[in-house]
Amino acid sequence: MERKSSVDLFDTIQTLLENKKYAALRDILNTMNPVDIAAVFEDLQSEKTALLFRLLPKETAAETFVEMDEDTQELLIHGFSDTELKELIDELYVDDAVDLIEEMPANVVKRILRQADPETRKEINEILKYPEDSAGSIMTTECVILRPKMTAEEAIKRIRRTGIDKETIYTCYVTDNSTLIGIVTIKTLLLSEDDEVVENIMETNVISVNTLDDQEVVAQMFNKYNFLALPVVDGENRLVGIVTVDDAIDVMEEEATEDIQKMAAITPNTEKPYDRIGVFETYAARIPWLLILMISATFTGMIITGFEDALAGSLVLSAFIPMLMDTGGNSGSQASVTIIRALSLGEIEFKDIFKVIFKEARVSLLCGVTLAAANFAKIMLFDRLVLGNTGITVPVALVVCLTMVVTIFIAKLVGCTLPMIAKKIGFDPAVMASPFITTIVDAISLFVYFRIATAILHI
Amino acid sequence: MERKSSVDLFDTIQTLLENKKYAALRDILNTMNPVDIAAVFEDLQSEKTALLFRLLPKETAAETFVEMDEDTQELLIHGFSDTELKELIDELYVDDAVDLIEEMPANVVKRILRQADPETRKEINEILKYPEDSAGSIMTTECVILRPKMTAEEAIKRIRRTGIDKETIYTCYVTDNSTLIGIVTIKTLLLSEDDEVVENIMETNVISVNTLDDQEVVAQMFNKYNFLALPVVDGENRLVGIVTVDDAIDVMEEEATEDIQKMAAITPNTEKPYDRIGVFETYAARIPWLLILMISATFTGMIITGFEDALAGSLVLSAFIPMLMDTGGNSGSQASVTIIRALSLGEIEFKDIFKVIFKEARVSLLCGVTLAAANFAKIMLFDRLVLGNTGITVPVALVVCLTMVVTIFIAKLVGCTLPMIAKKIGFDPAVMASPFITTIVDAISLFVYFRIATAILHI
Repeated sequence: MERKSSVDLFDTIQTLLENKKYAALRDILNTMNPVDIAAVFEDLQSEKTALLFRLLPKETAAETFVEMDEDTQELLIHGFSDTELKELIDELYVDDAVDLIEEMPANVVKRILRQADPETRKEINEILKYPEDSAGSIMTTECVILRPKMTAEEAIKRIRRTGIDKETIYTCYVTDNSTLIGIVTIKTLLLSEDDEVVENIMETNVISVNTLDDQEVVAQMFNKYNFLALPVVDGENRLVGIVTVDDAIDVMEEEATEDIQKMAAITPNTEKPYDRIGVFETYAARIPWLLILMISATFTGMIITGFEDALAGSLVLSAFIPMLMDTGGNSGSQASVTIIRALSLGEIEFKDIFKVIFKEARVSLLCGVTLAAANFAKIMLFDRLVLGNTGITVPVALVVCLTMVVTIFIAKLVGCTLPMIAKKIGFDPAVMASPFITTIVDAISLFVYFRIATAILHI
Repeated sequence: MERKSSVDLFDTIQTLLENKKYAALRDILNTMNPVDIAAVFEDLQSEKTALLFRLLPKETAAETFVEMDEDTQELLIHGFSDTELKELIDELYVDDAVDLIEEMPANVVKRILRQADPETRKEINEILKYPEDSAGSIMTTECVILRPKMTAEEAIKRIRRTGIDKETIYTCYVTDNSTLIGIVTIKTLLLSEDDEVVENIMETNVISVNTLDDQEVVAQMFNKYNFLALPVVDGENRLVGIVTVDDAIDVMEEEATEDIQKMAAITPNTEKPYDRIGVFETYAARIPWLLILMISATFTGMIITGFEDALAGSLVLSAFIPMLMDTGGNSGSQASVTIIRALSLGEIEFKDIFKVIFKEARVSLLCGVTLAAANFAKIMLFDRLVLGNTGITVPVALVVCLTMVVTIFIAKLVGCTLPMIAKKIGFDPAVMASPFITTIVDAISLFVYFRIATAILHI
């Protein structure tokens, strides 16, 4: 079961397609996972893709289709007849159909909705109403629903009869008048006696999310509770859908990528992998933050200009500016990134802010004193003795080391509080990471540096 | 199904425990999810935990136990009689038993292994042999194994008979002489006719991992293929175990947290949440990198010292140092973080390095020119006119803007190549993120700045 080198296989498929060897193509495709078939389609990008797509069995075709990027999907739909489109839509799970509709241009969406049967169309429209990134928007409505008075045997029969159209049959939902009253796994049903009644074996302590909960909350629940599926209920605790673990995994990876991108001052784009994002798109995602951060660095420049006389009087001070700025920035981002991740994973909340500040304050003092001591030794032994820079005196070294302690203290406090405050007032804490913190800490550290220098060195 | 405020519930449980209201306690615990019960145990941290633990039904007890942190687990084990410990071990899945053993001190491990039955002990020892973070080390050996000639009916009967001890019954593995030849889901079995033969309905194109594959590869497979479980095979394609999706999710979150921590120059710790890591542990994770980065900033200091005369001749140049350093650092980390994440998600590989460099080069020129233009306008209009800084002349502004273009170009190239090279030579690309790149880019940008300044301004 070695993974095949996808490049060679791709060349083979392309050649076979050009030579119209459809039987051989069908055999190859039959041995492949839909995810890998989708990758082949994305690489092909030709009018022949519709031809190739018709070689796939109906179910595989649908599974392959949902794994493709939107450009390839659109290309394919344009090549489809109305009948083919209808067949595809019928085969898709409702949540995948919704994803498709959200990504297609208006004219394609119209065509898709026209081909969907009335009930599917209604379900799609229901889901489309939920806000972006809410639990409702990522759920599917196709789940197995059981009645509390059924026996295990009846339940299994029902699953065998209706399961083919359900996204998962492994967790079944027990409702009474649409109200969710319990869940039962197919494992429990299979391991029970045939005449056991569902309401006696179901789990009644059901953990669910509300349709309007953020998808990040959904992902956190999966991470915490090891579910395979999570029920989504409305305000009256009526079951409206489920989120399955594969969709939750996508959300987790998306949220982590988004956090990482924001931490590096990039406008997030989690829809496409790196190699499919164009140069201009990459530029557009990066330039706004670079501009904002560059402009805000004006303040640090103004501080240096303000202390130009002090700097002229002791030019040796300028050699330590990069080191102090970097150390402050690094200390601040250590704190901010740690807090941002802890907030994302639901490990801490705003109410913990004082505990967090107290902890970071102690950590920062330990770090500050250690670094200052190491730095003092380095300045006196290396910069002064080895490099022979006689401008460096003990008072100068003291100014640098004192600044370091103060800067690290402030950096860690700014770094841990800003993300928490951002979250509290409804911003994304991840934008309060390294670049932003660095800019603030730069200005503060320079100000502290020159204040301490003028006080100690009397310049 | 509102989530209960865990604080109130915790107080209630504590009071009931103090007042020995065991019946009421049992009722409360019965309504709770094992994950939440585990959180209560972690907060209790008293000798009474063993008492409380005995109130749990055997299966819930095991599920709760595996969710606790290691300190609480150790405390509980110390309170257990040998019989109680044996009961717990019997109830644990093998992979959870292995996790437990890896975290307990030697004397506790001895006690655990003594209580495990011989077969379990053998399986535990097998798994313990695999290297840390390998697929073998996170797998479990308890899966449903079917024979190719069984009928669907026989297969379902077998599952009903043996399923109770299996970590998952939803994906079953078909082997022939221990060799993995196919997989079949219980959904397929249930939806098939009773007399359908397993080998005719099983999926033969099985995707598996090798015991020695890195757990990150395992996580990537789950992310890519939407599996609920993934078979682990040895060099001869013999089935040795499976990894289930809940363990894969843990790996994903761990790997993302680890990357994020390394990107922020923190020695990774993904074992414990933020609020359970002590001050000294936090300090120890952060100080090494701060020290290394501080010492390496010596080079930037040396560059400034080297150009001290030039700086003395045109002190206005110093005001732009922070801005140039920050912009270079931000540009570099945008590139490095993007590449690190793409590497983690398996979107790009080392062989793509020239494509990546070409793309980043174009993006960097676009960014560089935009920022330089904006910066020139800002310097002439704001710094010179509004702030009235007459030291700023057109040549000075040109020096700054030219430096910016060159710095961003170099920063993006350094940022995208270093992580890829790191990965190629076997280092973790994530340590090549912001702080490291920033230090390198700082030195380069200062050097470029002063060279351009001395050339253009003739100082």
